Amino acid sequence: MPGDSSGMRLRERVARNLRRLRQEKSLSQEELADRADINRNYVGMLEREENAATVDMLEKLAAVLEVDPVELLRRDKD
Amino acid sequence: MPGDSSGMRLRERVARNLRRLRQEKSLSQEELADRADINRNYVGMLEREENAATVDMLEKLAAVLEVDPVELLRRDKD
Repeated sequence: MPGDSSGMRLRERVARNLRRLRQEKSLSQEELADRADINRNYVGMLEREENAATVDMLEKLAAVLEVDPVELLRRDKD
Repeated sequence: MPGDSSGMRLRERVARNLRRLRQEKSLSQEELADRADINRNYVGMLEREENAATVDMLEKLAAVLEVDPVELLRRDKD
């Protein structure tokens, strides 16, 4: 495995950003999933880092959260 | 489908950034795939927008390309 210069694994970044942005919108995991038209279990799996999101999913989630998709991949301390 | 405020679909962003960063490293699609320890056809599929990259794949590719993974999702004109 190449060195992880980012200091945090990417699934963890997605999980943290997703939870934060979702809570800022006062949405439950299920509400976010419904609005993004994705499986209801999927958001929880991403927030638990059990699944690797695809860019298609990131695009749908970002649209509902009204952010650019890059926001879902950012480090905490940017 | 929610409005795409980004102006460009995310697969297209990944395809363009991946090709540009790969060429800056003077790597073929196959060389990049080998170094990232992923399937040899996968890089070509991403550059042709035939597949939706997962964050695990973005992480591996970014490590070889020596960029932060967010660079693969950026718009052209940032």
